[in-house]
Amino acid sequence: MIIGGGPAAITASIYAARQSVDVKVIAEEIGGQDALSSKIENYTGFQVISGVELIEKFINHAEEFGIEIKDSVRVTVIKKEGTNFSIYTDDGECCLARALIIASGSRPRKLGIPGEEEFLGRGVAYCAVCDAPLFRDKTALVVGGGNSALDAARQLAPIARKVYIVNNTGELQGEKVLREKVIGFSNLEVFNSTELTGIRGESGEVSSVSLKNPEKDFEIRTDGVFIEIGWEASSDFVKMVKKNKKGEIIIDVDNRTDIPGLFAAGDVTSVSKKQVIVAAGSGAAAALNAIEYLAGLKEE
Amino acid sequence: MIIGGGPAAITASIYAARQSVDVKVIAEEIGGQDALSSKIENYTGFQVISGVELIEKFINHAEEFGIEIKDSVRVTVIKKEGTNFSIYTDDGECCLARALIIASGSRPRKLGIPGEEEFLGRGVAYCAVCDAPLFRDKTALVVGGGNSALDAARQLAPIARKVYIVNNTGELQGEKVLREKVIGFSNLEVFNSTELTGIRGESGEVSSVSLKNPEKDFEIRTDGVFIEIGWEASSDFVKMVKKNKKGEIIIDVDNRTDIPGLFAAGDVTSVSKKQVIVAAGSGAAAALNAIEYLAGLKEE
Repeated sequence: MIIGGGPAAITASIYAARQSVDVKVIAEEIGGQDALSSKIENYTGFQVISGVELIEKFINHAEEFGIEIKDSVRVTVIKKEGTNFSIYTDDGECCLARALIIASGSRPRKLGIPGEEEFLGRGVAYCAVCDAPLFRDKTALVVGGGNSALDAARQLAPIARKVYIVNNTGELQGEKVLREKVIGFSNLEVFNSTELTGIRGESGEVSSVSLKNPEKDFEIRTDGVFIEIGWEASSDFVKMVKKNKKGEIIIDVDNRTDIPGLFAAGDVTSVSKKQVIVAAGSGAAAALNAIEYLAGLKEE
Repeated sequence: MIIGGGPAAITASIYAARQSVDVKVIAEEIGGQDALSSKIENYTGFQVISGVELIEKFINHAEEFGIEIKDSVRVTVIKKEGTNFSIYTDDGECCLARALIIASGSRPRKLGIPGEEEFLGRGVAYCAVCDAPLFRDKTALVVGGGNSALDAARQLAPIARKVYIVNNTGELQGEKVLREKVIGFSNLEVFNSTELTGIRGESGEVSSVSLKNPEKDFEIRTDGVFIEIGWEASSDFVKMVKKNKKGEIIIDVDNRTDIPGLFAAGDVTSVSKKQVIVAAGSGAAAALNAIEYLAGLKEE
């Protein structure tokens, strides 16, 4: 059983299917984070490709091997009984698996400030590639200073009238290439060492935000807030396995966790670099190691 | 500095270049093992692609970022002096690097039997994709029982008059999909539990081999011998780093070795699964971790 629908899970499923292993894939959402990336320039072999296109290629590749991905299903609990894993899902069905690969990825981190929940989908967004096109000639504010924030700003600046970046560190982080591109936009303004403290609205839509830096508290008007402050591992549903402080599942170089038969791959793991190609490679290795584990089980 | 010319090295170079790191790549051979694969069906995103085509895409991708790969250069010795690495090569030049990624891959293992060296290139081959086309209507013998051997047999069978597989274990190993394809050829014969003990020739070309199984010693006529018994890590030139018994450089999940500033990626490492996508992912992670290490150095 593979849990997840991104590059790690899909690659794992291709490897499993090629070895004629009976494999099921359960995904809360197909595509994972990639579906959120406007442009991917570092998946070796494709010079430039959109996240959506790349995932489409992944899915076609999986379909070629007859793999079925059970979509829109959330895993709620996993238990180990003997050498079997019981997987409980929110559609009420329960499956048994002899080996399990968790490749459930990560999800956007939230700010936890007033207005964030209230205006979600009404100006508050976590996905620039989805929502940037809605900001033509409007004002947008991006919270964050890393690659996600820079990528959001890069998508917004050519469309929006004005783009702000609110970054709580002293300077923008992220890749130099991206930083330079973003700084080049004349309609873009960066507030460093600044925190977003609240989001307010008018007629049910975001209209302004309150900000705070070492000198002052202030307010600016904006039509939208893109929260791009990173990601957290989607690992809540699995309690038994060893995780680090960030909630990431700790794996060794062969994708093994501390539970025999339980493997993990991609962004849900303790591997520090979160990249499409890293996740895909990790999915392949997890599948091959899981298959080896299954072969060992049969011998017993 | 990146040492290697395969998927791990090229991906590492793309990641380094995107972060504007001053990066050099030295390769004994561009392409690595992939160049030897006839058909790759498990590099996620490309349903079927030849090794040569995939590597071409990798190299074009790297060139897009202005990366230059110094080809046909062999690294002879690596020394660490202070925080710098000195890299000595067989073209007499020596370079300094502050961080080093070894992605030098692996090379075919040899049998070490009489005739193997003598008839190399005159019937003895380690690369089916290179040499299979030369065996039209001839007899070829493949030594090995894993994926490399099966892939060689799959390429040879439609071309050659007769193909033998000589496998020293009780049954063929390798992927089930490949095994099934190979067994389907009517001009193919498998000798299990059999060893190749010598290669003989006539007029300077391979003409026959001697074989040994638990029942008997025997001889068969063949025009060629493809030795496909696996690979060994190309890590001889680096003595200082911790390796396992197979000579593979031991890395942690973030591609670190036991030497600060020295990273490794791809087939030269202790990661057990050797796959293009695994190597590429590993190269990306190694580069990002090396960049992080360099950033730390600068702060000192």
